[in-house]
Amino acid sequence: MALWSGRFEEDAAPVTRAFGASLPVDKALYKQDIAGSRAHAKMLAAQGIIPEEDAEAICAGLDAIEADIDAGSFVFDIADEDIHMAIEAELTRRIGPAGGRLHTGRSRNDQVATDTRLAAKALAKRLMEANLGLRRTLLDAAEAAGDTILPGMTHLQHAQPVLLAHHLLAYAWMLTRDFTRLAAAFDAADASPLGAAALAGTSYPLDRHMTAGLLGFSRVIENSLDAVSDRDFLLDLEYACSVMAVHLSRLAEEIVLWSSQEFGFITLSDAYSTGSSIMPQKKNPDFAELIRGKCGRVVGDLVQLLMTCKGLPLAYNKDMQEDKEGALDAARTLEQCLAVMTGMVGTWTVNADRMRAVMHRGHLAATDVADYLAKRGMPFREAHAVVGHLVLEAEKAGCDISELPFEVFHEASELFGEDIAGALDLDAIVAARTTEGGTAPSAVKEQFKRARARYLVDENAVRLLSPVVEMGSAAEW
Amino acid sequence: MALWSGRFEEDAAPVTRAFGASLPVDKALYKQDIAGSRAHAKMLAAQGIIPEEDAEAICAGLDAIEADIDAGSFVFDIADEDIHMAIEAELTRRIGPAGGRLHTGRSRNDQVATDTRLAAKALAKRLMEANLGLRRTLLDAAEAAGDTILPGMTHLQHAQPVLLAHHLLAYAWMLTRDFTRLAAAFDAADASPLGAAALAGTSYPLDRHMTAGLLGFSRVIENSLDAVSDRDFLLDLEYACSVMAVHLSRLAEEIVLWSSQEFGFITLSDAYSTGSSIMPQKKNPDFAELIRGKCGRVVGDLVQLLMTCKGLPLAYNKDMQEDKEGALDAARTLEQCLAVMTGMVGTWTVNADRMRAVMHRGHLAATDVADYLAKRGMPFREAHAVVGHLVLEAEKAGCDISELPFEVFHEASELFGEDIAGALDLDAIVAARTTEGGTAPSAVKEQFKRARARYLVDENAVRLLSPVVEMGSAAEW
Amino acid sequence: MALWSGRFEEDAAPVTRAFGASLPVDKALYKQDIAGSRAHAKMLAAQGIIPEEDAEAICAGLDAIEADIDAGSFVFDIADEDIHMAIEAELTRRIGPAGGRLHTGRSRNDQVATDTRLAAKALAKRLMEANLGLRRTLLDAAEAAGDTILPGMTHLQHAQPVLLAHHLLAYAWMLTRDFTRLAAAFDAADASPLGAAALAGTSYPLDRHMTAGLLGFSRVIENSLDAVSDRDFLLDLEYACSVMAVHLSRLAEEIVLWSSQEFGFITLSDAYSTGSSIMPQKKNPDFAELIRGKCGRVVGDLVQLLMTCKGLPLAYNKDMQEDKEGALDAARTLEQCLAVMTGMVGTWTVNADRMRAVMHRGHLAATDVADYLAKRGMPFREAHAVVGHLVLEAEKAGCDISELPFEVFHEASELFGEDIAGALDLDAIVAARTTEGGTAPSAVKEQFKRARARYLVDENAVRLLSPVVEMGSAAEW
Amino acid sequence: MALWSGRFEEDAAPVTRAFGASLPVDKALYKQDIAGSRAHAKMLAAQGIIPEEDAEAICAGLDAIEADIDAGSFVFDIADEDIHMAIEAELTRRIGPAGGRLHTGRSRNDQVATDTRLAAKALAKRLMEANLGLRRTLLDAAEAAGDTILPGMTHLQHAQPVLLAHHLLAYAWMLTRDFTRLAAAFDAADASPLGAAALAGTSYPLDRHMTAGLLGFSRVIENSLDAVSDRDFLLDLEYACSVMAVHLSRLAEEIVLWSSQEFGFITLSDAYSTGSSIMPQKKNPDFAELIRGKCGRVVGDLVQLLMTCKGLPLAYNKDMQEDKEGALDAARTLEQCLAVMTGMVGTWTVNADRMRAVMHRGHLAATDVADYLAKRGMPFREAHAVVGHLVLEAEKAGCDISELPFEVFHEASELFGEDIAGALDLDAIVAARTTEGGTAPSAVKEQFKRARARYLVDENAVRLLSPVVEMGSAAEW
Repeated sequence: MALWSGRFEEDAAPVTRAFGASLPVDKALYKQDIAGSRAHAKMLAAQGIIPEEDAEAICAGLDAIEADIDAGSFVFDIADEDIHMAIEAELTRRIGPAGGRLHTGRSRNDQVATDTRLAAKALAKRLMEANLGLRRTLLDAAEAAGDTILPGMTHLQHAQPVLLAHHLLAYAWMLTRDFTRLAAAFDAADASPLGAAALAGTSYPLDRHMTAGLLGFSRVIENSLDAVSDRDFLLDLEYACSVMAVHLSRLAEEIVLWSSQEFGFITLSDAYSTGSSIMPQKKNPDFAELIRGKCGRVVGDLVQLLMTCKGLPLAYNKDMQEDKEGALDAARTLEQCLAVMTGMVGTWTVNADRMRAVMHRGHLAATDVADYLAKRGMPFREAHAVVGHLVLEAEKAGCDISELPFEVFHEASELFGEDIAGALDLDAIVAARTTEGGTAPSAVKEQFKRARARYLVDENAVRLLSPVVEMGSAAEW
Repeated sequence: MALWSGRFEEDAAPVTRAFGASLPVDKALYKQDIAGSRAHAKMLAAQGIIPEEDAEAICAGLDAIEADIDAGSFVFDIADEDIHMAIEAELTRRIGPAGGRLHTGRSRNDQVATDTRLAAKALAKRLMEANLGLRRTLLDAAEAAGDTILPGMTHLQHAQPVLLAHHLLAYAWMLTRDFTRLAAAFDAADASPLGAAALAGTSYPLDRHMTAGLLGFSRVIENSLDAVSDRDFLLDLEYACSVMAVHLSRLAEEIVLWSSQEFGFITLSDAYSTGSSIMPQKKNPDFAELIRGKCGRVVGDLVQLLMTCKGLPLAYNKDMQEDKEGALDAARTLEQCLAVMTGMVGTWTVNADRMRAVMHRGHLAATDVADYLAKRGMPFREAHAVVGHLVLEAEKAGCDISELPFEVFHEASELFGEDIAGALDLDAIVAARTTEGGTAPSAVKEQFKRARARYLVDENAVRLLSPVVEMGSAAEW
Repeated sequence: MALWSGRFEEDAAPVTRAFGASLPVDKALYKQDIAGSRAHAKMLAAQGIIPEEDAEAICAGLDAIEADIDAGSFVFDIADEDIHMAIEAELTRRIGPAGGRLHTGRSRNDQVATDTRLAAKALAKRLMEANLGLRRTLLDAAEAAGDTILPGMTHLQHAQPVLLAHHLLAYAWMLTRDFTRLAAAFDAADASPLGAAALAGTSYPLDRHMTAGLLGFSRVIENSLDAVSDRDFLLDLEYACSVMAVHLSRLAEEIVLWSSQEFGFITLSDAYSTGSSIMPQKKNPDFAELIRGKCGRVVGDLVQLLMTCKGLPLAYNKDMQEDKEGALDAARTLEQCLAVMTGMVGTWTVNADRMRAVMHRGHLAATDVADYLAKRGMPFREAHAVVGHLVLEAEKAGCDISELPFEVFHEASELFGEDIAGALDLDAIVAARTTEGGTAPSAVKEQFKRARARYLVDENAVRLLSPVVEMGSAAEW
Repeated sequence: MALWSGRFEEDAAPVTRAFGASLPVDKALYKQDIAGSRAHAKMLAAQGIIPEEDAEAICAGLDAIEADIDAGSFVFDIADEDIHMAIEAELTRRIGPAGGRLHTGRSRNDQVATDTRLAAKALAKRLMEANLGLRRTLLDAAEAAGDTILPGMTHLQHAQPVLLAHHLLAYAWMLTRDFTRLAAAFDAADASPLGAAALAGTSYPLDRHMTAGLLGFSRVIENSLDAVSDRDFLLDLEYACSVMAVHLSRLAEEIVLWSSQEFGFITLSDAYSTGSSIMPQKKNPDFAELIRGKCGRVVGDLVQLLMTCKGLPLAYNKDMQEDKEGALDAARTLEQCLAVMTGMVGTWTVNADRMRAVMHRGHLAATDVADYLAKRGMPFREAHAVVGHLVLEAEKAGCDISELPFEVFHEASELFGEDIAGALDLDAIVAARTTEGGTAPSAVKEQFKRARARYLVDENAVRLLSPVVEMGSAAEW
């Protein structure tokens, strides 16, 4: 019989056992659950609600149980429904009636909210660290890229030459925004619901600030109904993961493109490639594809929780039991994706020659030729049209605009002088884009400094986070 | 080293191991994988591509492996990446070089498509059966409801009285449409990709119709590129699950409402209720809430796969490895939801008196009073307004329209005669709605016959499905 | 005051006007609404519920109103809330009290369900026609492609050579499945809810089969509650659109890739390309990108409706007013995407030489070299390893496997004879894949016949659909 | 011909016109576009890139065009593709060649990013204000509720009595978190992309900080590729809207429940209710249902953009044109929902007597009875079981636990004394929950102070936002 079965005359239908049990999912939160119980017991004793010796017995019992789970020697029984019941039932088996006092002034409603928030903090922190790991690798790769240029693209068409370093820094900035979202998710989780009890608070003189402090929470939740029904912090975490997954899917797409025979811009290391069971020549960018594909998974997790929360009246509803699996999945997925992406970027080989070689086809200098005319007084729109026609001629001649003879330029406009050659040189084109945030080596150097500084700020921010209860290693979360 | 590692000089990075492996998910398909390999081996021998004795050794080896997995004694090693490699590697360990001939003219690309299609067929069939189970229970409950009436609602406001049987049959019809979608998903999966090899077919003289026949497929896929890249059949399955989940969420919402203190229309059995860890009086409709909540999960699975498939070029891409987990999850979730809902509906107690008692508040006769006037010549719109004012008077008097004295009616319109009493009687109102599909007992009896007939048709349809390879019991899919 | 305002003492708050009105959306359904009213009026008269002359006046009035809307001269007033009220109010203004009899035995609940189902049928049919249009173009393009080969890819890596025709036919088959889903959506919509009234049927002796017949519905809905609360048919339509959008996104991705400077496999016509406001050389595959991007939009529409329907109790709830906008948007989007894709594919230029030229890099013959060994007795797995090493040598030598000297082959395995040259020839490799569904010209010719036959079957199926009420041209739906 | 058509020899296919044009959507951003152009022109002149008089002509021309659009007298031509082209083309028609100089050093890529960010800031600010509006109304309603108690529920079952004020404050806190998310979305948008040009920066000596300052941006974006490809700020806005929509759907659900005949806790004002076309008695909570239903719409918008952004390579891709419609829709929807909810809550009538009357059924005192025992030394788990049995007895006797005779209590445990009456009184139960965040009037009063203080802080935060360019009133955005 369940711990709540006083008023029931009939056992649960067998078909509901596996269906209703959250244990297979929430056992991943055992360290959070035990930490929460420990803090609650200490506070109960400090407030004189339970005897000091009961609290000591409870804490000792919990320590032993935690050690057993850590060691993998604890046997979970699905009949216990959830991690709270599993641990409390075992505790009472071990220490007797004192175990029955642990739940004084507490409900599974505030207990599960506490566990989940503690886990969300731990997960957010891990993701912040993994995020920093990839950023560091991107910054290093950008630094290593030196003045390597590649065809900057829009619409996957050659647009203008850019520094590879500039291109990689764009991803570093995306990840910087992701860090901000993760920090917001951490902060959203960083408030203690403990003391809200079932939904209304309790008549015991609990000290909510004491338990919050023991657990590393920065604040307590202001409203007991909100405390047990709020899952925004999980949405925030899943949303942060979703956008980060979209960012990684973009980089993954570029890795797939760049390592194709047609592009050939990079070569992945064998350690981050796989082969085919039938085609002996294959070396596939499997892991980039998986990262790209897992984007759907994480967004699916977010959709799940948003939809599950829709239209729920206050306060706690069982629908909300479906909150943890997706959040754990999203966090686990992203942590893996970040680690694999970090390894992949850190070990790829850049084929700088190939990047440069392909740039003879896309008329990448066209904008600068138009600017050349505009700087000599022609309205830009007119210059654009003149150069458009030059491109058309080059296309017909099967060459790049930079390969057209000077006469053709001059015929198109008398404003063209011999110095047009400068506007046709790819390195010169890159070097000219010196405005802040532009791709000129000088501007990228400045940008690099800011990106590195921001990296250090964020690295420090992780250190300043409120304490977390780490996920249990035995939990294979 | 992986089976495909000939051209590789470096081992896979450890961080990619767990990330790239699909084994934890696709081991659920071991019976499908083994059935596919068995059929392939037999065909290879029949076509003279491998020696007959090799095929026999392969089949015997596969039988033994299947028995071991069934018995739970097979040890999976994540280094084997996926179920195909795990089984093939073990086979070769057991039977030697003949095992290496099994993969002749086959690729993991058509192999995984075959396994997944076989599993989709098995899952769709199970869901069709579970769907029939709930429909049967709903039909029985409708029959048992007799002439019980409850306040039919729109906008959760009392609208017109309806038979409880009529209300329950509405859900039976929803589930009938779900059955149609499941049947479409079964049919979508029921085509053999085997023989497409990696993407282009092979130069071996395979007999694709033979393997299709051995595996119970009704047809072969017409195009080898399509064969390895199509996952529509999983989308179809997840979509069928999604709509069915939405339907169940609606019934679940009504169960939550109906078992609230305020409604009190039904009482759930203890076997399908749970209590609270802190509030001793609680008897919660947990399982209805979980069913409602799991709707988000299944839609999340659908979104995941749609998003993952977006923008993938032909033919196979690794992103598609993310296809199975969501489909298995959606099918498993729905099978559980259907079973639990069946039990819950089959054991609830209908409080017919309470259903009738609450109908003194909602002016449920108002439409019939307006119709009374319209039938006596007043344009309906005018009658509507007259009755609207009567309702307003009743509201102010704190009574139901049926409790207004006759004089008030007569004052509102001289068309009202003493026979208005007939238009105010709830049973008479219900009995009058005799048009096809209406709520009159006579019409519902006709409807019931059609619903029962359709049930029998669908039950028979399950029997006529092409053969399936059942999910392995050891797979805890 | 609204037509329903009898019991109300206060006007609607101004802020609710625009919020509650569905007129901006559902006016697109004016022809469906008028057709439904016309059929209802005729049936009411035939059943003796209203006078014949009233029905005639109603029909004449509706004809005039329809002509005015067609001509764009009808002024809609948002105070009328929805298209039903807008038309009925105008009708009563024009023909007097007879207009007030039109709504006898009908509710907006069954009326809007009727309109929406009629529209869904019309939309599904249009999409089936547009689907056929693109399939026809793909079949023509496949035929025109002749024996052109391109590098078949998996993981965007060169895998095996395939016929361009084979590649294009894969998309034709995807669209064939989409046609099936559209037909299912048409069928789901093809049942008349008229006569269900508000939710319970009515006490008027309506002839539901007569109105169904007049409106072209194939059957009537069996249950009045279901009739007003079912929106599955819209989900089915949006789902069919979603999968089709995913398919188009895949083709769009390939168009973007193929028209890049790096691939160069096709050149889009100017008519289906756009330029840049700043870069004069740009010729962008904008429309392919838009098609790819709109995939998200259509899936968003599907998610919207699934989520909106979650947890709604029977019967009608206002939430369901949100059903039409997404469905119209999804159908409109797909119709455009199909038309644009048809034009784009129909006008592109295939650069067959370029497709062939790039195939010197990917060791596309490797599988056939392994098969060569396997056919000479080596277990395939061993052959795979031997060829893997050959590929590695070729890579180090900077050449394709087909360019390795014979000695290298012979050294790798004595099974290699001079006839290995045959296994290295791309055309021979293609020609050898003759199994059903394979890429050999002979097999593709057979496949082509089946695809063409299926096209004709589906073309005929459109002709056999039950009658539809076309969308109004004035509605800019 | 389009402004970019120099290199094109063929016109756009007619079918692509409406498909490719974003004008119907982005004309809502006309004020942002004009502001951006004005700032760019001034900066170009300040930097000596174009003559001062050209800048003046440009600004004067833009002022006139803006006035025309404001007045509704500007005729948009879909052939102009987008708002940028529409305005620039008209400008050049009006002021001649100087107009052609406006686009110097700018691309539509950074231009549209600028417009969209300006709009996102304006939308976020409006939503913050609307959010404050509803919070104010909730705070007022909480204050007005005094000591009214209602049955606090979990699982929609009576749990423990709570103050209505406490219940309403829970929503105020949810909205407080929504405000934080809106502020984060504002901040994400508050960075200027102008100067990034097409993707790489430009060779003109632009002063990006000057344009940023003129437009009210707080900072410039650090990387030009990121500047044109980032749409995180729209995701952030749509996400903030999504969670807020989920919150509103919860309150809406409660309004639907509370205004049902069964609950009867509140009565909506006529001004926020609607009737039925057929049922004269109906007074439906239509607007609450619509708010609940629109939750799906907003989440659909979010899914759309996440999916559209998946897998896009750098830098700009046309897929991203699909970014604005959903964001505008989400913001517009939420602004309406907030306004309607504010009106609905502000005008409802609370039926306090009814709230209290229903509390005789749910054994709401059971927790306190268990606590009574626990405080007298019985382990809580044991006390829970004792009270569970008392509830069962009361259920069988058809009464509330508070109605059981004292003897029954005493028989169940000798710890019960006469003072148990205090634990059975609902007001006393509420009053006892004095821990921080609990439902005791004293605790709620403290909570109220904090909620009001936080409201003032947020109100002030809106005042401190960086300047925004308001949405054009003519734009019917």
